[in-house]
Amino acid sequence: MSETDRLLENNEAYAKEFDKSGLPSPPAKGVAVVACMDARMDVHSMLGLKEGDAHVIRNAGGVVSEDALRSLVISQRLLGTEEVILVHHTDCGMLTFKDEALKDAIEADTGERPDFPFHAFSDLEGSVRTSIERIKENPFIPRKDSVRGFVYEVETGRLREVV
Amino acid sequence: MSETDRLLENNEAYAKEFDKSGLPSPPAKGVAVVACMDARMDVHSMLGLKEGDAHVIRNAGGVVSEDALRSLVISQRLLGTEEVILVHHTDCGMLTFKDEALKDAIEADTGERPDFPFHAFSDLEGSVRTSIERIKENPFIPRKDSVRGFVYEVETGRLREVV
Repeated sequence: MSETDRLLENNEAYAKEFDKSGLPSPPAKGVAVVACMDARMDVHSMLGLKEGDAHVIRNAGGVVSEDALRSLVISQRLLGTEEVILVHHTDCGMLTFKDEALKDAIEADTGERPDFPFHAFSDLEGSVRTSIERIKENPFIPRKDSVRGFVYEVETGRLREVV
Repeated sequence: MSETDRLLENNEAYAKEFDKSGLPSPPAKGVAVVACMDARMDVHSMLGLKEGDAHVIRNAGGVVSEDALRSLVISQRLLGTEEVILVHHTDCGMLTFKDEALKDAIEADTGERPDFPFHAFSDLEGSVRTSIERIKENPFIPRKDSVRGFVYEVETGRLREVV
């Protein structure tokens, strides 16, 4: 039995107790969270979010990539969110490698070199600031009064504000 | 008080009860989930995931964008995941607009036309299949034995397998 099959069994149990039908599509709290994909972060638990409350955008690093910007534009313009919470975290995998070294390894393994950036970073707080700047500079995101960046401490469960 | 400030208060409460320090970075269940950012999906609750279990990658639509592929490459190659669960959902916002119409509206509002795709789609199951194909065709993702695509029903809380 695969892990996927086990998780589908969990979903059966979730569906049996499900009482969240009829929630509207626009997030009730008007918030979009951008966070790293890291397994140690349960964004809903860490922020006390419930189904229906907030958009959650996640990728490797929690960096504000082009795709995160695409998602934020849709979140604000079509679904009415007004606040952004950006979350990177301590002990992030993105701090442990360099783009060029990963590309070298992949090329050695597959015979083909990735032509896209992996967005590894060496300065955690600096990366939060860079990502926040990318949101603030983007001409297509209309609401920027509350765009705040944090480091989540995997050691304590606490969000520490950076910018 | 902003919603962000209220969520930070929730995080204080979470941190006070926090007993998850010391979890390793590689996901315990070896799973990466790719899902839509939709507010009605709490990926951890719907799959019975706990902190430490799985990578969670989310964006508008849950489409396998270039950035989702970047995240999956890092997830598998650097952090050892072996299974992918892709989740789109009923009543998705991506079904309600067309890329060109959104670009028209943004250009009218800002004077500048977005030069990137928004990845709107009109066929929900078709979009799941397209995204699964993008993973299977990608030369940099090594493990493809368990790459499965689902529609989450916001009406029932249930995951329905598509491919």
